[in-house]
Amino acid sequence: MTLNLSLTLEQIGQRAQSASRILAQATTETKNEALLAIARRIDEETEAILAANEGDLRAGSERGLSSAMLDRTRLDPKRIQTIANSVRELVNLTDPAGEVLKQWSRPNGLKISKIRVPIGVIGIIYESRPNVTSDAASLCLKAGNAVILRGGSESIRSNMALAEAVSRGCQDAGLPEHSVQLVPSTDRAAVTLMAQLDRYIHLIIPRGGRSLIEAVTSAARMPVIKHFDGICAVYVDRAADFRMAEQIVVNAKCQRTAVCNAIETLLVHDEIARQFLPQCAGALWERGVELRGDAMTQEILGSKVRPAAEEDWSTEYLDLILAIRTVRNLEDAIEHIGKYGSHHSDAIVTEDDAAARKFLHQVDSAAVFWNASTRFNDGGEFGFGAEIGISTDRLHARGPMGLEELTSYKYLVEGTGQVRG
Amino acid sequence: MTLNLSLTLEQIGQRAQSASRILAQATTETKNEALLAIARRIDEETEAILAANEGDLRAGSERGLSSAMLDRTRLDPKRIQTIANSVRELVNLTDPAGEVLKQWSRPNGLKISKIRVPIGVIGIIYESRPNVTSDAASLCLKAGNAVILRGGSESIRSNMALAEAVSRGCQDAGLPEHSVQLVPSTDRAAVTLMAQLDRYIHLIIPRGGRSLIEAVTSAARMPVIKHFDGICAVYVDRAADFRMAEQIVVNAKCQRTAVCNAIETLLVHDEIARQFLPQCAGALWERGVELRGDAMTQEILGSKVRPAAEEDWSTEYLDLILAIRTVRNLEDAIEHIGKYGSHHSDAIVTEDDAAARKFLHQVDSAAVFWNASTRFNDGGEFGFGAEIGISTDRLHARGPMGLEELTSYKYLVEGTGQVRG
Repeated sequence: MTLNLSLTLEQIGQRAQSASRILAQATTETKNEALLAIARRIDEETEAILAANEGDLRAGSERGLSSAMLDRTRLDPKRIQTIANSVRELVNLTDPAGEVLKQWSRPNGLKISKIRVPIGVIGIIYESRPNVTSDAASLCLKAGNAVILRGGSESIRSNMALAEAVSRGCQDAGLPEHSVQLVPSTDRAAVTLMAQLDRYIHLIIPRGGRSLIEAVTSAARMPVIKHFDGICAVYVDRAADFRMAEQIVVNAKCQRTAVCNAIETLLVHDEIARQFLPQCAGALWERGVELRGDAMTQEILGSKVRPAAEEDWSTEYLDLILAIRTVRNLEDAIEHIGKYGSHHSDAIVTEDDAAARKFLHQVDSAAVFWNASTRFNDGGEFGFGAEIGISTDRLHARGPMGLEELTSYKYLVEGTGQVRG
Repeated sequence: MTLNLSLTLEQIGQRAQSASRILAQATTETKNEALLAIARRIDEETEAILAANEGDLRAGSERGLSSAMLDRTRLDPKRIQTIANSVRELVNLTDPAGEVLKQWSRPNGLKISKIRVPIGVIGIIYESRPNVTSDAASLCLKAGNAVILRGGSESIRSNMALAEAVSRGCQDAGLPEHSVQLVPSTDRAAVTLMAQLDRYIHLIIPRGGRSLIEAVTSAARMPVIKHFDGICAVYVDRAADFRMAEQIVVNAKCQRTAVCNAIETLLVHDEIARQFLPQCAGALWERGVELRGDAMTQEILGSKVRPAAEEDWSTEYLDLILAIRTVRNLEDAIEHIGKYGSHHSDAIVTEDDAAARKFLHQVDSAAVFWNASTRFNDGGEFGFGAEIGISTDRLHARGPMGLEELTSYKYLVEGTGQVRG
């Protein structure tokens, strides 16, 4: 089995590499045609996809999967239409491949151009909803990359049906059948084998929980871009506009709780804590948020606030829970975030320019906000059009990862016979 | 021992992390002061460094190291002055940290800035000459990074003396003592332990032979930027200027042989092979180059040319040996390079614009040259001022890796109370 799997993956890798060479030379027009054809195929094959999904749901029930898990797997005609439309929308995005990033001449007359090129072959290992199959693949494709997908076992039939539609759409536009391939195995060994295919795969993006990301990171020989979740904070400075601060805290905590750019921690300058906290806590309690606080917070808000333990400062609740700490000054807020935060998204609310500048520059996170909700750390909100996720890494891509972050570059050097002396 | 080593590395990591926070906020002025102080310390401590080096050479002789190896380790007053001057020259380079890479506003009024920031903590694992200790550390430092160095056992005493001078220079300028640290152990386990310190080290750059790079790549949990050697080619098109082609081939092969951007392969369009090859071979033989060729090359150049075997096309000689192949057309040349090359540096010599454009765009290498020697794929030649190496990776840094490639970025977002709807 593992030998067969290894051979299968070797073949998938070789085919992806061949496809990537053709994709790298494909025009924007052809790639857009392929995206439209993929969307059309998904529309047309709605029934086949739903039947496959039905099979996943049946198998999942038999295996005793939770209803939440089954819900994430479930497709219906409307969801499939949304999936097709997401692919269609990529047509409007600017093709990053071929962009001239820089151009300069050297004293010896050499003309150097740094141009954007596709990365090559991107591996995506995911365990989430089946729409990742077409969403991630189409985004990578638009940038000119070939894709190898490895989805979770609970959606294997749905993923195969969607991948089939994607592959046919590519062929409709004259692009290689193997531009996008799904690993046809739910064997866990496939993840490890993929992570070692650095001969063919230039980048792996694991999409899923911590244990999946850890497993891929440990095994991978090629670069991995991680999308860990976030321990994010809002710091309400003593010079904050209280109404604005309250709205930002409520938005950052409550608008969606199970996302990486929602906050888990509220830091409040102790000089304003007595005025600000009761008002803000009221708004949070109204929305059902459980508050945990340090001694001063408890003193101000009373026994409804549970004491926050040391581990609360570094826990990602992904739930309606917020840890509150009072700090003596801006520096303590910055230090708290540096020590307990996950360098994802953090915000300061203040009318004090100098304090804001200091916070923006000293907080070492992918996105640092001044008088705005952390929830804006998102490819769509940044204007990238679509994103494959929010990178928690510092190299190659940090923060929202859109089309540009799915490219590499190369140098073209034009001379008139120059040799090195 | 391994437990102690593990604790030592943990401490080194923590100290580097603390230092990196201060370095990230250091002004260009302070960093330049530190560079000058480092150079001064190296000058002043020349005798101590030479004494340490003497110890390395004695220990190396006793261990029976080859004279080539001992030569690479050997320092003298002139070499030490060169080392100090290399550090001094970094003062003139533009500090990349803080540069605004992009700035835009969103319809909701959010102002987003993408700014360059240091990567954080960079690990350098090397086995080459002791000058890497100060060269690599100073370059990383100028971009605002903390550095953890792990050099080879043959230079441990020299490296420690140099690292001590670097660390003192940092302190002279008020920067942390632990901005640059050398792992004080020649135990091989230190490499593996370092590769697993992803809590503290954001990037590892292995500088050395293939086996070192492979070992680091397999063990590393953080991003690794590899600097593998190159299998580079010059393709002489049918529309080439023969004199220019000959000069480029001779330069790319002979100017320095043991470097990654020297060529190992010459591809010649078969229509011009009979005219071009004898002339070019004469110039190569004059410089003592051994030629290995395909059947047509042998037929044209005679028995002095050894037959090239399949493995010759993918061998990095790093020596005065050149493999020659005739090709039927441009496409075959591009295909050969895609199949056997290492995507490092490749060149076309031609007066035909269309052929050149096709080659530049279809050859998937870090730098592709038209009518110029592959030897120009170099940070200095590109105008980067200094380089830490030539990356053979595709992510984060590709090709010459200078100061800019030693940085990451972050987003600063300024609002007026925006929340996400």
